[in-house]
Order: sequence, then structure tokens, then C-alpha cells
Amino acid sequence: MKLIRYEINNKIDIGVLKRDKIYPFKNYSLSKNYTDLKDFVKNYNSEDFEKLKEDGKDFVNIKDVKILSPFVNLDHDMICVGLNYKDHVEESEKSKIKAGEAENATYFSKRCEIISSPDEVLEYDFSLDEALDYETELGVIIGKRGKDINYEEAKDYVFGFTIVNDFSARNLQKDHGQWYKGKSIDGFSAMGPVIVTSDEIDGMNLDLKTYVNGELRQNSNTKYMIRDIYKLIEEFSRGITLVPGDVFATGTPKGVGMGFSPEKFLKSGDEVKCVIEGIGELKNFIK
Amino acid sequence: MKLIRYEINNKIDIGVLKRDKIYPFKNYSLSKNYTDLKDFVKNYNSEDFEKLKEDGKDFVNIKDVKILSPFVNLDHDMICVGLNYKDHVEESEKSKIKAGEAENATYFSKRCEIISSPDEVLEYDFSLDEALDYETELGVIIGKRGKDINYEEAKDYVFGFTIVNDFSARNLQKDHGQWYKGKSIDGFSAMGPVIVTSDEIDGMNLDLKTYVNGELRQNSNTKYMIRDIYKLIEEFSRGITLVPGDVFATGTPKGVGMGFSPEKFLKSGDEVKCVIEGIGELKNFIK
Repeated sequence: MKLIRYEINNKIDIGVLKRDKIYPFKNYSLSKNYTDLKDFVKNYNSEDFEKLKEDGKDFVNIKDVKILSPFVNLDHDMICVGLNYKDHVEESEKSKIKAGEAENATYFSKRCEIISSPDEVLEYDFSLDEALDYETELGVIIGKRGKDINYEEAKDYVFGFTIVNDFSARNLQKDHGQWYKGKSIDGFSAMGPVIVTSDEIDGMNLDLKTYVNGELRQNSNTKYMIRDIYKLIEEFSRGITLVPGDVFATGTPKGVGMGFSPEKFLKSGDEVKCVIEGIGELKNFIK
Repeated sequence: MKLIRYEINNKIDIGVLKRDKIYPFKNYSLSKNYTDLKDFVKNYNSEDFEKLKEDGKDFVNIKDVKILSPFVNLDHDMICVGLNYKDHVEESEKSKIKAGEAENATYFSKRCEIISSPDEVLEYDFSLDEALDYETELGVIIGKRGKDINYEEAKDYVFGFTIVNDFSARNLQKDHGQWYKGKSIDGFSAMGPVIVTSDEIDGMNLDLKTYVNGELRQNSNTKYMIRDIYKLIEEFSRGITLVPGDVFATGTPKGVGMGFSPEKFLKSGDEVKCVIEGIGELKNFIK
């Protein structure tokens, strides 16, 4: 299923996207009134989940709505993984953004109070840092509470997938020693256009591309991750409880702005389009 | 005012602590029924705030309750500042934990799904990392939404203060490149025993001490911060919206376990007591 949050006639609603039709949750006989997709991920039951697979009583056309990020904000910061594609590790080293010791993943977080929606303009103030960059990443949404999760059972903890653009201010990222500040500017997490539930696609093998003003910049596949999504869940959850609604951003491949010589940072008026197979397109504009 | 969350007769309640008496919120005629202290910080009005300054209709004795951390969990990860006392910067360098470029604060975050309460045993699994450490820090609780906050107005955004023990797994902190994983283990944020509202104490000048099994390890004052609390709010909020209920952990002075030769990491059975003038004591035990 593709779950979608959207606006129509100045009202925000949630539904299931089937081809070009959106079937609103409210037109199904569900066991409760889910207020938004975060509420659904946190509190759904399998009966409601199955009902939503059917066509609902009524639908709206996707062309008539404004698509919103699946979540308004996150309960915890987004769990991010740096340097998780070999070719990106290489391009990052020349920019002095380095990984941790050899075999350990580089985890950091991204504050998600204000998430950018698809087609939204990023109201970025370039006086903060001119080195504005993009990173297309597979977003993995956790659907079950747990810690010390083994690799073999990690799949059961994945609710679904979305596209994340992990916008980054490269100088802030470096100058503050830790990356948190340079990753956490308002709107720096773009998410969407939908959540695809994990019964529908295999996150381990999806093509991933980024276009800036139509120019192909990133072109890879999630199978090239150094640590795959189940390995990340296993390692990060050692000692740490994950909860439904948590989102992992699983790293980005080669082709970010700082990787080019000279660097190709984003500038005012640019259009960034992140594409992941089976999920769709996430496009944003830079103010 | 000192606001407190506590358990009595297997029920959790919130109240105002005056000397050794707790006046429960429910015994005041407030405009609404605040479910917990996070709800209060997020939604209080000034009229209710003033009413709570009076003695309520009834009270319980503090010796009859179990004190809980002021917040069950946080809506966003705790906003932390590394290396914010000069003497701690020096002791950290020998452990290869380094700051960012010169004049910029080192911000990182700490996942706060499971917060340790006062007197609680930290159920820590030493197989994660034997280098378990403590850090006593002034916790600053934000009470007002805003971004790009100036130094001069930062005071208006502070709801109050608490004590934070920023437990740290030093090897995880280093081995993963970024500190997030080694700071985010379940229970690694201890908070309490109360929130002292900002009209009552000046966070800029408070004695701060740590005792491990009775031995004085840290002994400083918040006036020795490299960047004071208003400077931190000013800098971090550049481009980032803060919301009520956000917590800053403002850094720790010299005297953490990794600073000694040989290092004095925490071990099973230890008692750590964090003391901040005007707030109280926060004691925890290591399993």
C-alpha cells in the first residue's frame, strides 16, 4: 500500500494511493479515527491494515490535491547514517568529512520539528552557510517497539519506506565538530511523497537517483549500502529502544554537491528531485 | 517554583514542591487538567502559573513519594553541548574526543525515549562498552516556541532548570565517529529531581558537583561555561525552531571518569550523585 497525507479544499487528510486515485481513510469502516499517518503507524491494527488494501467507498484524484510529507514532525530526531555507500565515503574524504573507526556505522541525528513536503520551497537563509547540499536516501519507518533486535527479525520492525532528502549545510556540519547543527536546520528533512508499506517493496534493492535542475547527479541502488537496512536496525538498537514512527535515513551514494570539483552546491532557484524506485519522486525548490 | 513528578500508592502525579511538602496540581483550581509536566510546560497559561505559587488545598510529604524524572520522555532529542567548560576541553583532548573548529559550540543530540528517574538503577549492559561515564550538567528547559532568538531575549525562552546526568559510553562515542550512538543508550539521560522555574534561580551562576560513591569528582559553577546558556540558545536557534519542552544539556566541567589517569569509569554497584545549587540532588545507581 501507498499511504499519503494531503491537502484538499484547505483541509488535511490521509488516504491510500492506488494508481492516480486517493481513497481517504475516513471512507473506510476502521476501528478508530486515525488523526494522521503517525497515529496510524503507532496505533494501527492488522484488521484495519487489511481493510485499507481494498478500494474505499469514495476517492479523490491525486491531481486535485497538494501532497504533504507523510509525517508533520517526528517524535524523536531522525536516525541517520553517514557514509553508508562506498563511493560516497571516497567523495566525502576530500571534503574532510570523515567516518568513524573502520567497521562501525556513523550514526547522527536530524531534528525534525519542521519537515519539508513534496514540491515545497525550502525557505533557506544562505547567510547561515552557503554550502547547501542534498542527499537522497531511503527512509525506513519503524512500526514496532523493540531493542536489541537481531538481523533476522529486523524485517518485522519495518513498517514501510519513504524518500528522504537529507539537506545538509556543509560548513556548519564541519565547523561545529559534530554534524547535528548542520543537519537540523528547519525544513532540512524533506519526506515523501508516500509511505510504501514493507509488504509491497524490498528496500534492499531499489534504484535511487537525484536530479538537480534536470541534471542526473546521484544514480545508485540501495543494494550498494555498506550496511544494509537490517544491519543498521540491528546495530543501532543494541541498547536503544526503537519505537513506531522512528525513521532511519539510511545514507546516500556518490554525487552530492560537495563531491564535485568544483563543488556543485545548491543555489537559490534550484530544483532538486529525489527518485526511488517503487516509491516515487520527491521534488523541492530552493528559495 | 519547584515542579515535581512523583509516584504515590502506585499512581503517578504532578505537584509543586515547597520545602518538604508536595502540593498536587489536582488540588488547585486550574484552567485545565494538565496530564504531566511536559503538558504543563507546553500548554500552561500565566494565571495557572501564578495560582500554583500559592499553597494548594492539600499536600503529601516528599518522604512518602517516589520521585520521577520531570518528563517521561522528550518530544525531540535532548540538545547537548560538548566541551563547554575549558577544564573539561583539556581533559577530553587526551582521550581523543575533540571539539569542532575553535569558536563554534559542539552540538550533538541524545535520544530520550527512556529517561532515568532520581534514585533509579541504570540497567546498563557493560558488554555494550565498559567505558561508562557520567557528566553532571545544568538542564535548561525551553518554554516558548521560536527561532533566530537573540541573546538579549533568550531569557524569555527559558521555562526552568533541572539536573541532567549525561551518561556516556566513551568507546561507542569514539568508535562511531559521531557521538549520537554512545550518548543515546536507554536510560543514559537522567533528569530531576525537579524543574525549578526560571523566575526563581539564575542559571548563570550555580555551583555544580558530582560525587561517585561519596568521592567528589566534579566541582565547578555554571559561570565557567565557555558559552553561557543564552549564547547557546542564540547560536543553536539560528535557523532552527525551538519548541516548549525542548531541553538543552549545557555541558559538563572537568572531573569525568575519562579525565583521570588511570581512568575512573563507572562500574557495577556504583552510586553517582549530581548536585546543582538551588535545584537539588540527582542520584543514580549502576546495575
